[in-house]
Amino acid sequence: MRTVTQDTITQAFLDYCGPDTDPRLRFLLEKLVGHIHDFAMETDLTHDEWRKGIEILTKAGEISTPERNEFVLLSDVLGLSSLVDMVNSPPKGTPSSVLGPFHILGAPDLPFGGNLKGDNDGASVIVSGIVQDLDGSPIKNAELEIWQTADNGLYSNQDPEQPEYNLRAHMAAGDDGRYMFTTVRPAPYTVPDDGPVGELLHATGRHPWRPSHLHFIITAPGYRTLVTEVFPNDDPYLDEDAVFGVREQLVMVYEEQRGKRGIPSGLLDPDDVTDPYYTVDFDFVLIQE
Amino acid sequence: MRTVTQDTITQAFLDYCGPDTDPRLRFLLEKLVGHIHDFAMETDLTHDEWRKGIEILTKAGEISTPERNEFVLLSDVLGLSSLVDMVNSPPKGTPSSVLGPFHILGAPDLPFGGNLKGDNDGASVIVSGIVQDLDGSPIKNAELEIWQTADNGLYSNQDPEQPEYNLRAHMAAGDDGRYMFTTVRPAPYTVPDDGPVGELLHATGRHPWRPSHLHFIITAPGYRTLVTEVFPNDDPYLDEDAVFGVREQLVMVYEEQRGKRGIPSGLLDPDDVTDPYYTVDFDFVLIQE
Repeated sequence: MRTVTQDTITQAFLDYCGPDTDPRLRFLLEKLVGHIHDFAMETDLTHDEWRKGIEILTKAGEISTPERNEFVLLSDVLGLSSLVDMVNSPPKGTPSSVLGPFHILGAPDLPFGGNLKGDNDGASVIVSGIVQDLDGSPIKNAELEIWQTADNGLYSNQDPEQPEYNLRAHMAAGDDGRYMFTTVRPAPYTVPDDGPVGELLHATGRHPWRPSHLHFIITAPGYRTLVTEVFPNDDPYLDEDAVFGVREQLVMVYEEQRGKRGIPSGLLDPDDVTDPYYTVDFDFVLIQE
Repeated sequence: MRTVTQDTITQAFLDYCGPDTDPRLRFLLEKLVGHIHDFAMETDLTHDEWRKGIEILTKAGEISTPERNEFVLLSDVLGLSSLVDMVNSPPKGTPSSVLGPFHILGAPDLPFGGNLKGDNDGASVIVSGIVQDLDGSPIKNAELEIWQTADNGLYSNQDPEQPEYNLRAHMAAGDDGRYMFTTVRPAPYTVPDDGPVGELLHATGRHPWRPSHLHFIITAPGYRTLVTEVFPNDDPYLDEDAVFGVREQLVMVYEEQRGKRGIPSGLLDPDDVTDPYYTVDFDFVLIQE
């Protein structure tokens, strides 16, 4: 391909790929490079704009650390991360949503009905629900991983003031699929906006806020693992999540409760529960593998 | 936009862009994000593939230095850099081609007919030609910057054995538009393939070679600056440049010469010229601004 032109360069790229190229890789590159080339041609991309793009990627590399990956953040705020969740979500069942960068392995076991709130500030929230299948039947041997921000909007691995596994737990659901725990309301928080992604947000008049949410990973033998988040219906950022994680089916309702009569007896110590407190009832629907 | 779906996420992204967003930036993002989203949907991109993509970008950041930018290299081997050259090239005149990462400022002046070869190994090459306009008339006050690899395939700023400005020069063309200098043949070389871009090349059965070339930047008052490269017609990599820089109009012919009778008298010292030596005649056509 001696003379490459705008009309031939995409094919020239494909012609370079050897016969032993993995077919899926070749397909991905064909689509990726086709779109990149179309982008440059449709926009008549200038050298200055190309340089700005290279600069954004270069700065993203410079600010990234093992704890903070600016490329993930870029993918998040462009909607790519959520879109990957969507294209891999089964059409039925509870939708998946962003795993995010704050999950860590090794969270301690919490028994059914246990207290995740501990010494954290904020009103008590009793979260409960059923892990069930598409027919509404409870799934046996389901397990949940739960993590969330504290009242200050920080996860334990962002905040040296918090114990390592603060507001993180692993829980086995009952044979009836039920789970329950007491916690505090998570707080809205901002994604990091002091790097090149922040510059992009500022240049487009966007804020870096995410609505508050509880993270869940739910597993059960024979079912697809569900990675998702659940958002309160009254969060001010529900309609403008910086990373596009909200789905209507992932919105929960905090019901305010006064007095402690409604607290399930024998499971939660009423002394552990604030007045008022809140209840959340949220069921998860898993899809068979 | 509470419920983002595959059908609505691209519009949701656009709706986030505030009214004060620069219109060109908004247009670029609309196209970029549209293509990124289409790519993910057309390929049903998996989480593992997304993670691999993030890993490639992360590794590219880690291996980049002020002297080596892996994102530029990625753009080069995907054909994006050349495509940006093409969409910004006027339809007539000498085509532009990759600036590349090896240009440095401050190259010393070389007079018309001067000797750039110096102590470099290799056969002498006398390069000459005319800087002219679309009508074939010589352009006055044209200036050329020239840089190239030595016989070992390395530029001076890659090779501690070479003087800082080895095989680099700035030359003023004559009032007749003519330029001329003696040099050595540049050598083919490989782009760096020890990073994530190299992994991509290997996975697709591609080699990292570029055909040998002379770099030029040509300026003249009232004319568009031309950044280009000129390739010999007998280079083994002419049809498979790893970065898609070759255009038919940028191919030059090395004419082998024996004896020294053809050496322009008074300008080049015959003692500076090997036997055989080579001549190259290459004219540049600039476009008025």
